[in-house]
Amino acid sequence: MSEHAHDAVEVITTKRDGASLSESQIDWVVDAYTRGAVADEQMAALAMAILLNGMERREISDWTAAMIASGERMDFSMLTRPTADKHSTGGVGDKITLPLAPLVAACGVAVPQLSGRGLGHTGGTLDKLESIPGWRADLTNAAMLAQLEDVGAVICAAGDGLAPADKKLYALRDVTGTVEAVPLIASSIMSKKIAEGTGALVLDVKVGAGAFMKDVDRARELAEVMVALGTDAGVRTVALLTDMETPLGRTAGNAIEVAESVEVLGGGGPADVVELTLALAREMLTAAGATDVDPADKLADGSAMDVWRRMIAAQGGDPDAELPVARESHVVTAEAAGVLTRLDAMAVGMAAWRLGAGRARKEDPVQAGAGVRWHVRPGEAVAAGDPLFTLLTDTPERFDRALAALDGGYEIAAPGSSYDPRPLVLDRIG
Amino acid sequence: MSEHAHDAVEVITTKRDGASLSESQIDWVVDAYTRGAVADEQMAALAMAILLNGMERREISDWTAAMIASGERMDFSMLTRPTADKHSTGGVGDKITLPLAPLVAACGVAVPQLSGRGLGHTGGTLDKLESIPGWRADLTNAAMLAQLEDVGAVICAAGDGLAPADKKLYALRDVTGTVEAVPLIASSIMSKKIAEGTGALVLDVKVGAGAFMKDVDRARELAEVMVALGTDAGVRTVALLTDMETPLGRTAGNAIEVAESVEVLGGGGPADVVELTLALAREMLTAAGATDVDPADKLADGSAMDVWRRMIAAQGGDPDAELPVARESHVVTAEAAGVLTRLDAMAVGMAAWRLGAGRARKEDPVQAGAGVRWHVRPGEAVAAGDPLFTLLTDTPERFDRALAALDGGYEIAAPGSSYDPRPLVLDRIG
Repeated sequence: MSEHAHDAVEVITTKRDGASLSESQIDWVVDAYTRGAVADEQMAALAMAILLNGMERREISDWTAAMIASGERMDFSMLTRPTADKHSTGGVGDKITLPLAPLVAACGVAVPQLSGRGLGHTGGTLDKLESIPGWRADLTNAAMLAQLEDVGAVICAAGDGLAPADKKLYALRDVTGTVEAVPLIASSIMSKKIAEGTGALVLDVKVGAGAFMKDVDRARELAEVMVALGTDAGVRTVALLTDMETPLGRTAGNAIEVAESVEVLGGGGPADVVELTLALAREMLTAAGATDVDPADKLADGSAMDVWRRMIAAQGGDPDAELPVARESHVVTAEAAGVLTRLDAMAVGMAAWRLGAGRARKEDPVQAGAGVRWHVRPGEAVAAGDPLFTLLTDTPERFDRALAALDGGYEIAAPGSSYDPRPLVLDRIG
Repeated sequence: MSEHAHDAVEVITTKRDGASLSESQIDWVVDAYTRGAVADEQMAALAMAILLNGMERREISDWTAAMIASGERMDFSMLTRPTADKHSTGGVGDKITLPLAPLVAACGVAVPQLSGRGLGHTGGTLDKLESIPGWRADLTNAAMLAQLEDVGAVICAAGDGLAPADKKLYALRDVTGTVEAVPLIASSIMSKKIAEGTGALVLDVKVGAGAFMKDVDRARELAEVMVALGTDAGVRTVALLTDMETPLGRTAGNAIEVAESVEVLGGGGPADVVELTLALAREMLTAAGATDVDPADKLADGSAMDVWRRMIAAQGGDPDAELPVARESHVVTAEAAGVLTRLDAMAVGMAAWRLGAGRARKEDPVQAGAGVRWHVRPGEAVAAGDPLFTLLTDTPERFDRALAALDGGYEIAAPGSSYDPRPLVLDRIG
C-alpha cells in the first residue's frame, strides 16, 4: 500500500467518530470495495456509521461521484431530441412510468427509462411490463439509443456496467439493516441516473404508509439532497413529494397494472393515476425545455397510445396480446353500507406481494396475473355486499396470508360520513 | 426458520433504532453468528450500531452469557486451593503478570492465568514468556489443572473451546473499526474469564496515553461494567484503574521484560513494577479470601522466585537459560542536562513494536530480543551525553522508524525542574 492510500479501518473510524470523510477517503473506499480490497464486513460497518452519523452534502456528492466512476457513463447527446427521465422511490400501485414514458415521448422529449425489478411490497416496472407476451427488458446500449431516436421512449433494465459499486453496495445494505440511510439512498439513485446520461430528471418521492419514507420531513430531506446532487452534476433535476398513504389507481400487481396503464393511455383510467402522470409529464417537459406542448392533449388525441404500442413492439412485445389472467380469485365484500375513509397502501402492497405479484428474494419469480384490485377508493360509498377487493393468484393457498395483510388496512365509516382527501402532490423541490 | 426465531436484519435494526435487544435476540444472534448463519457483514453492522448506540447493563450481561454458552466452561472446584486471576486491558512495559502469578501462588492462592499474544503497540504475556528457551504456551486442560495443583500457578494460552463466539467476533471487530465499544470490550474480556472458572478476578484497567482508554471516565465506566458482570456471574471481581501515561518499569519488549520480572521476583526491580505487583497481589488475595499473608514477605524470602522457577520448568522452560539478546543496539543520549518530565507510553510502545517486539498481524512472528530500554524515568535527572534509550533489534533497518516514534515522546526540562508524579493506582472499583 502506498503512503498516500488509505485503509479501511481508518475510513470507518473517521465516520464512526463523527468526522467528515475526505474526497480522497471516499474515492479510495468506494473503489477498493468495488475491487474487493475492502471486505463486505468493513463496508457494512461503514454503512452503519454513515446511517447513524450522517454525511454532509459535500461527502454525499463525492460518494455519488465515486460510484459513477466505478462504471461506464452513457451519452445521449447525439440524439436529435432532449432527454428526460423519471425516478420513483417506490409505491403501491405505482404504474406511472408505463403511461408517462410514451406520453412524454409523444410530446417530443426522449425518455431513457432504466428501471428495476420489485423487491418487497412495492412492484417493479420491469415485472409489470414482462407480463406482456414477448416483451424483453434487456437491450444493448446501441439498441436503446436506436429505439430512443426512432420511438422516443425506452423502458429497460440497467446494464451491469452502470455504477457497479452501487449494485454491490445495495445488495449489502439489504442484508445489513443499512437501507434507510438518506446519504446512501440518495447516492444510490442519483449515481445511476447521472451515469445514465439523461439531460433532465424528475424525482417522485413517495411519502406515507406504503412508502419507504413515512414522514414528509425525511422525504423532503431526501428530495433536497437528490435535487442538489443532480443539479451539481449538470442534470436539470426537480422532485415532487407525492402521497403514498393510499395506493395509486385501483390495481396493484403486474398484468392488471399494465391494463390500467393502457386505460390511461386510452384517455380513461383512475383520476389519481391520470393526475400524477400529467403532473410528472409537465415537470419532465419543463425540465427538458419543451414547454409548448400540453401532455393532456397527447392523451386525448391518441398519440401517447401510439408511442406505447411502438415502444412495446420495439422490445418484442405484442401490444394487442391478451394479458395473463390469474387462475384463482377471491372477492372481499362490504359487511355493511358506508363510506371508505381509509385504504392503507402498505396493507394492499403486502397483500399483492403475498399473492405472488412480488418477490422476497431477488432470484424469485413473480406471477404475471397475481395482485389486488380494489373496487372502492377512499371517499366512495358502498352498499352491504358490494365487492371491496378482488384478490388474484395462481396459487390459492396464498389467499389466507393476503387476507391477513388486508385485515385492519381499511376503514368503512357510517353512511354519509365525510372524507377529506389528502392532496396527491404534497410539495415540489427544485 | 421457526416462527419464534429471529432474523439478522431485525436484530440489527432494533439496535440501530436505539432500542434494547431482548435476551432472545441476543442468544439467537450470538449463536447464529458462531454457527455461520449470521454473516460477518451482518455482525459488523450490528457491532457498529452497538458501538454508537450503546447497550444497557442487562443487554451486556445477556451478551456475555451468550458468548460463554458458545463454548466450554472450565471448573477448578476440585483444587485444594482457592483460585484468583488477573486481567490487564493492556499497557506498555506491562510485565506484571510474570512476577504476579508466582507471587500469589506463593501466598497459597492458585492462579490460572490464560493469556494472549500481543497485537499492536502493547506486548503480549505469551510473547514475553516464549523468549525463555523451551517454554511452551499450549497446555491441555488436564495439564493445566495438574500444574495448578502442583505448582500453584500457570500462564498459558486459552484453548479454542473457550468462548469461540468471542474469538470470531474479536477478529471481526479488529478489521471493522468496532474494537472501541465498551459493551463489546467488557463482554469479550469477561466471557473468557467467567468461562475459565476462576473464583476471584482482579482487573487492571489502564488509563492514559499508552492505554486503550485515554480518559479516566471511560476507563471507570468499563471497569464498573466488568465488575458488575463478574459479580453477577458469581466471580468475586474488583478493578484497579492504573496509570498508563508513562510505561511501566524500564523495559518494553520480550526477553528484556522477562529479565526485569526476574529482578522483581529476586527482591529488586523498578519501584513502580514492584508497587503494582504488590497492589494487585493484595487485591487477588483479598478476593480469594487469603488475607493472612503479606505478599511483600514472599518476594523478600525467595518463595515467589521458587514458584516462578517451578512454573517455567513445568512448561518446558529453563529458568537458568540465558535469554536471547538482540543482534543490534542503538543508544539515544541526552543533548543537555535536565530533568525528564514526560515519557509517553504510546511513543515507547510504538518504538518497541517497530523494533520487532510486537506484531502488526496475528500471524506475524516477534523478535525475542527486540525492544526499548529507558535509562531514565520521569522525575530523574540526566547530564548531557547520558544515555536515555537503548533501542534493540535483530534488524537494524528498523531503527529509523523506531526513532521517529520516540520523537516528541519525551521532554527534558531545565536542571532542577520539579516533577509532580501521578499516582500509579488511580481508583479502585468493586
